Amino acid sequence: QDQLQNPAPLANKKLQNCLSEVEGQTCIDLIHDFLNFFNLDYTREVFVPESSTNNFKSRAQLCHQLSIKETGDVQTAPALVSLVKERTKDTLSEFQV
Amino acid sequence: QDQLQNPAPLANKKLQNCLSEVEGQTCIDLIHDFLNFFNLDYTREVFVPESSTNNFKSRAQLCHQLSIKETGDVQTAPALVSLVKERTKDTLSEFQV
Repeated sequence: QDQLQNPAPLANKKLQNCLSEVEGQTCIDLIHDFLNFFNLDYTREVFVPESSTNNFKSRAQLCHQLSIKETGDVQTAPALVSLVKERTKDTLSEFQV
Repeated sequence: QDQLQNPAPLANKKLQNCLSEVEGQTCIDLIHDFLNFFNLDYTREVFVPESSTNNFKSRAQLCHQLSIKETGDVQTAPALVSLVKERTKDTLSEFQV
């Protein structure tokens, strides 16, 4: 009966392994920030329980952790968009050097 | 009656503006690749219609576009995880210089 009252949580081993690394948790935080920013509320309502995470980093924390420059973009775009923009810019400038 | 038969699509102007830029679409592709990789199927089922996107880039296309080095990681992790790992590594090496 204990087993029925306390069933094992639905295991997603692959995700759990990812979440055990800082970078994996950061990805979850980036997605949560993106969904929040664009009011993708239905997706977020499913994502939160399915990702087994309930404590998400704020955009400011993410920008700090990923050293995203606090340009105007950070106020007006999710951290993931800023990250991709900086990455694309960096890649372009490599070619331009 | 035309209005009833052809209602305006639910508009998410903020997201639509984002998707009009390459980087915005790339974020959507990165999230889709992440959800796919970790079998976050319920989230994906909601994300696809809510993001108004139905043509997602493959991981190989994403890695090419973002110049993610095709290390072993690319085979065993979503593009977003590789991107965050490279970013963290780059940031660390800046401090170590």
